[in-house]
Amino acid sequence: MSHKDYNLFMSTGRIEALVDGIFAIAMTILVLTLAVPDVTGPLSNYAVQNALYGIFPSFYTLVMSFLLLALFWTLQHRIFHRIKQVDTVMLWINLIWLLFIVLVPFFASLTGKYPQFAISHVLSNLNMFGIALFLYLCWHYASKRDFIHEKVDDNEVTSIRVDIIIFLIITLSALVLSFIIPDWSSLVYVLIFPLEFISHRLWFSGK
Amino acid sequence: MSHKDYNLFMSTGRIEALVDGIFAIAMTILVLTLAVPDVTGPLSNYAVQNALYGIFPSFYTLVMSFLLLALFWTLQHRIFHRIKQVDTVMLWINLIWLLFIVLVPFFASLTGKYPQFAISHVLSNLNMFGIALFLYLCWHYASKRDFIHEKVDDNEVTSIRVDIIIFLIITLSALVLSFIIPDWSSLVYVLIFPLEFISHRLWFSGK
Amino acid sequence: MSHKDYNLFMSTGRIEALVDGIFAIAMTILVLTLAVPDVTGPLSNYAVQNALYGIFPSFYTLVMSFLLLALFWTLQHRIFHRIKQVDTVMLWINLIWLLFIVLVPFFASLTGKYPQFAISHVLSNLNMFGIALFLYLCWHYASKRDFIHEKVDDNEVTSIRVDIIIFLIITLSALVLSFIIPDWSSLVYVLIFPLEFISHRLWFSGK
Amino acid sequence: MSHKDYNLFMSTGRIEALVDGIFAIAMTILVLTLAVPDVTGPLSNYAVQNALYGIFPSFYTLVMSFLLLALFWTLQHRIFHRIKQVDTVMLWINLIWLLFIVLVPFFASLTGKYPQFAISHVLSNLNMFGIALFLYLCWHYASKRDFIHEKVDDNEVTSIRVDIIIFLIITLSALVLSFIIPDWSSLVYVLIFPLEFISHRLWFSGK
Repeated sequence: MSHKDYNLFMSTGRIEALVDGIFAIAMTILVLTLAVPDVTGPLSNYAVQNALYGIFPSFYTLVMSFLLLALFWTLQHRIFHRIKQVDTVMLWINLIWLLFIVLVPFFASLTGKYPQFAISHVLSNLNMFGIALFLYLCWHYASKRDFIHEKVDDNEVTSIRVDIIIFLIITLSALVLSFIIPDWSSLVYVLIFPLEFISHRLWFSGK
Repeated sequence: MSHKDYNLFMSTGRIEALVDGIFAIAMTILVLTLAVPDVTGPLSNYAVQNALYGIFPSFYTLVMSFLLLALFWTLQHRIFHRIKQVDTVMLWINLIWLLFIVLVPFFASLTGKYPQFAISHVLSNLNMFGIALFLYLCWHYASKRDFIHEKVDDNEVTSIRVDIIIFLIITLSALVLSFIIPDWSSLVYVLIFPLEFISHRLWFSGK
Repeated sequence: MSHKDYNLFMSTGRIEALVDGIFAIAMTILVLTLAVPDVTGPLSNYAVQNALYGIFPSFYTLVMSFLLLALFWTLQHRIFHRIKQVDTVMLWINLIWLLFIVLVPFFASLTGKYPQFAISHVLSNLNMFGIALFLYLCWHYASKRDFIHEKVDDNEVTSIRVDIIIFLIITLSALVLSFIIPDWSSLVYVLIFPLEFISHRLWFSGK
Repeated sequence: MSHKDYNLFMSTGRIEALVDGIFAIAMTILVLTLAVPDVTGPLSNYAVQNALYGIFPSFYTLVMSFLLLALFWTLQHRIFHRIKQVDTVMLWINLIWLLFIVLVPFFASLTGKYPQFAISHVLSNLNMFGIALFLYLCWHYASKRDFIHEKVDDNEVTSIRVDIIIFLIITLSALVLSFIIPDWSSLVYVLIFPLEFISHRLWFSGK
């Protein structure tokens, strides 16, 4: 880094450390939302088993939220692996992105408490859209400002852009669906895993 | 690092790791303070929407606290990006600064519970003043003890000092206002974002 | 790293940071599950002492869970110390491994609440088996894909494999025992410490 | 690092990351133990002020625990700054040390709930003694096994040993005092700060 660069730009290490810390906490405290169920009536192995069936929807939400957070983390990781430096704008794009991330558990419990109403799903999907949008802004700004490492080939730059756009389209679909079929709108997110996988394969076979 | 320096000074990595960890946790647990509201009366989409309006002040406090913590983090980041080593005094300035940081959520809930009384705002703003003061001490001590990296130009040293002084003045104003108009005193913090932005612009255009 | 490697592989730093963060949180929040007991009847030094005897089983579970998490961490540390890079598959093996890790506190409280029923122990031991299995997959994939550092000798590669297989066998035994003698099945885990120690000794003396 | 060293020893980075993570969490969740007090009777500025006086002892405990944790962290930092590598024994000395660290909040609330009984103070001080003892073992083992960096002079090695022995003596005194004057035994810890400071001064003036 030249003298001038040193004063204008910062290395990526600290923002990565903050991101890793926030994801580690968000992914771990998800489990705190999963309470061991109380058994009503006489205790037996069968009764405990039934009580556990009762918390299965929460367990499913927990696993899905964990996997989605893990996916967001890998996307951010893929971006920052290819960036050599950040400036103040880049820092704040990431900090606001983290605000959407820490809100994920709140919207997860809102949807868990009032799953039958559109409002829960609309707000929750709006938050997801915010995550996708700021990830897009992050990569877009990095490409525009020439923050991307020289070693990264153009193919990879486009591949990441495509993956984020897939994610944007999925969150937008979920947002639209949450007005029509609120209860099922979040199922769209399941598509994200095979779609990202297929996009990845196409990219490599097309090489 | 020479032998003598090795025994007297330490690199900045670990204090940065502790700072990043504490901020990651403080920023994530803010959301734990935001409970999904209970709906009184018959459940409907409209009722849930109304209940959510009810927690809007808490939501606003959450977003503001998150952005303020993010701002403090970027200020500490800007300082430590330019520091080559720390000694015991520097370590303790930062550790006591972290004590004020971890108290932010406590004072946020005190102000949230008793917003109508001066005492909540006075104590909360006193804590903010502590944050600004120890940030100032940190940069002042670093300049005095020659811990600043050679690559950093004097312009940047002054720019950081000015940004911290702006922050000091804002917290002092909030402290004074909390005796006169307690309920509105914390609104002063909103000024911090445009002021830091303008200061930054002036600095670069003045170059 | 060559240009091509740079685009396909990532360094291990960030996944290690996420792992360290998640373990730090899981190991610290274990203590939050240990509540200071309430004394029933008249207060006295003796009464408090008796109340503390009452929470001894929870304290024992806490210490065991902490030591087991510490052991899993050292195993992951031993693996990643010897790996030079990761790809997407390796990332996801570790992310799913972390899902089993964050579930440890949930299954610990399930077993604490309903220790007399097989179902608690079966599920808890199934989770432990998942941890052992994904650790095995991680090391197996790393060896197969040639991610292991050149400096690591074959002896060490086999030693780590043996240690993970010991861990796999112990979790499988606990799983089988949880159908026969549920209450005592988790005692099997105590064996893990001397067994890993003996395996370590044999390996070094055999050198 | 030679090939043989690479297989036997590990660098200190990851254990430092785990330590920093656990301290960051322990220091932040201390604040979660400080609840905003409820005001009984009519609300007024004066009533809130009085209620805040009521939680002053908890606030004092919080600040003291934070500063003690910060001190333990700096001691561990001083040790690891001077160590070039760790082996399995060193890892486990530190992991068991972390077990005592995560127990600090539990014993803090035990002492807070039953301050009038010897048992609370005896157990709490026993835990503190464990922290001091494992810190001593850590430095002792590092010196014996030649893990200390060549750049560290003997003066510094002894200085760290003296600081840990001061800490050991203080925890032992507190342990003895907790049988005689339980309520006041923990006040001994206040001595740690001036004593460490004086020891530091003597050492540097004696140079």
